[in-house]
Amino acid sequence: MQQTFDSHRFRHALGTFTTGVTIVTTVDAAGNDVGVTANSFNSVSLAPPMVLWSLARTSASIAAFLAARHFAVHVLASDQQVLATRFSAKGADRFAGLNPARGVDGVALLDGCAARFECRTAFQYEGGDHVIFVGEVLNFEHCEREPLVFKRGRFALAVSKMPVSSQAGASHLSAAEGAFGEDFLIYLLGRAYFQLCQRIRPEMERRNLADPEYLTLSLLGVRDGRTVAQLDSLLAYTGTRVTERVAARLEELGLVEIEGPPGDARRLLLTAAGRRNVVELLAVAEAASADAEKSLDPSESHLLRQLLASIVEASNPGVPYPWQP
Amino acid sequence: MQQTFDSHRFRHALGTFTTGVTIVTTVDAAGNDVGVTANSFNSVSLAPPMVLWSLARTSASIAAFLAARHFAVHVLASDQQVLATRFSAKGADRFAGLNPARGVDGVALLDGCAARFECRTAFQYEGGDHVIFVGEVLNFEHCEREPLVFKRGRFALAVSKMPVSSQAGASHLSAAEGAFGEDFLIYLLGRAYFQLCQRIRPEMERRNLADPEYLTLSLLGVRDGRTVAQLDSLLAYTGTRVTERVAARLEELGLVEIEGPPGDARRLLLTAAGRRNVVELLAVAEAASADAEKSLDPSESHLLRQLLASIVEASNPGVPYPWQP
Repeated sequence: MQQTFDSHRFRHALGTFTTGVTIVTTVDAAGNDVGVTANSFNSVSLAPPMVLWSLARTSASIAAFLAARHFAVHVLASDQQVLATRFSAKGADRFAGLNPARGVDGVALLDGCAARFECRTAFQYEGGDHVIFVGEVLNFEHCEREPLVFKRGRFALAVSKMPVSSQAGASHLSAAEGAFGEDFLIYLLGRAYFQLCQRIRPEMERRNLADPEYLTLSLLGVRDGRTVAQLDSLLAYTGTRVTERVAARLEELGLVEIEGPPGDARRLLLTAAGRRNVVELLAVAEAASADAEKSLDPSESHLLRQLLASIVEASNPGVPYPWQP
Repeated sequence: MQQTFDSHRFRHALGTFTTGVTIVTTVDAAGNDVGVTANSFNSVSLAPPMVLWSLARTSASIAAFLAARHFAVHVLASDQQVLATRFSAKGADRFAGLNPARGVDGVALLDGCAARFECRTAFQYEGGDHVIFVGEVLNFEHCEREPLVFKRGRFALAVSKMPVSSQAGASHLSAAEGAFGEDFLIYLLGRAYFQLCQRIRPEMERRNLADPEYLTLSLLGVRDGRTVAQLDSLLAYTGTRVTERVAARLEELGLVEIEGPPGDARRLLLTAAGRRNVVELLAVAEAASADAEKSLDPSESHLLRQLLASIVEASNPGVPYPWQP
């Protein structure tokens, strides 16, 4: 049954098991801080409270941990990826600038983690080319920070599974009959977009702005000095067109100044009033997003943007982005 | 330093460490299948290849595992949540209907997992109220299935972290200056929505359908027999209005039949040609989504819909959903 072992494939198979990421710290005999990144952590026992992790016998830090009476395990938060990388890099000054607090035996305690366990070394067990360290937990802390995750060799975020929200009456009619369902992507995108825009609409009306004027102002907020033709080519994919009439209307409202001799090369510049209105409208839009995202945690909000950016890139028919020169 | 231990808080702190989910199987002395759900799994050693997991001394299955010379660890895929629950429930007939394959010593091997490790029991170590089992891996298999994740006591999915796509020239202008950035949610939603709609546009034009006619047809595809007023109230949030003119136009095109005496109570019914066109247009829309989602894995597509549904619910000003009666 024994087979020639392909350790590359074995690592890959182990990578299917998703884990959090920890940094384990201790002090060596000379009193120096020692710390390593480990994702081999896990809970063991509740009474007595015990956790375990393992470290390669070839690790430069193995002697310190074998001799240590105490160590601390830090479950990293999602924004501590840089720390995880630093504590797994060879030759890095791992504790530089961290100014850690001190726990039992002077072991370094790092800040900003999702959880921290101060342990007494209870057992050290043989585990092939690794040593398994079992610690009895003396003290612990935790907070609601989003934890960092490691999956198939990459840093990740974990998002709780829930069914796609079951909207009242949503049926399971099939697309073959011409009925879209509540998981129809274009419907969800459009519905979310237009509902959020509803919050901006009263502010547009108060300023006598229709869609083309509003969208033009938003683009000028990113960078002004664009021509009508440039603005139009940036917005055409939305079905809204920017014409000379739109420019004239914005000038009339005192929001835009038109620079240059009559003709296609004339550029639109925001006036001070124009800039102020753009800032106000953007604040309303940001507030509408923030309210809609109240039910999401920060990692979910981040993921939503990341996934939407993928969709935008994959479906872009060649329209420049608003920030492009 | 020893403190009174709050084991509820301790569990909660341990829950910050995200893990995959496994089922470990063996056979007992009488030849019966035994299996438990465990998230205490982790890798230990590459050479020799070793993994570990731990089981409570109070588990009904502990005797079987203590006596077992072999066991198999199954890293569960994201669609195996039901199995994870079944193998952690008391009294359930855990193997009912599974018809497992058989590995070394006749140990049950389950299908459809992200990875599977057949192990020889190498060590059994004391770990407080748990026993730590270290297995030498004799055989393993893995596949590209999305793994199931456990986070803070709930099932989850892990999504790789990547920076929000860095679009060329995207600057870090501040909202205080009126410039929205590439992570501006309403921009991302609108851009994704309108770009996907671009793919449908040629098909609309070929059928002489403008936005109001197209959106009306889509709603009738979900359920027809609605009045103009009902259709209008469902679509008003998009800024598109459904009027008698829209209904008349659809009738003229042979896509809709108008039922009832003149007046507000007249209902729109799809004709056979109307139904056929809705099916065709929906197929184009689904293809556009599928293309845009090619860079996403199934768990990411699922999450995107789940997150959008949250935004839709949170921002809904009271507009009924298309499936509501």
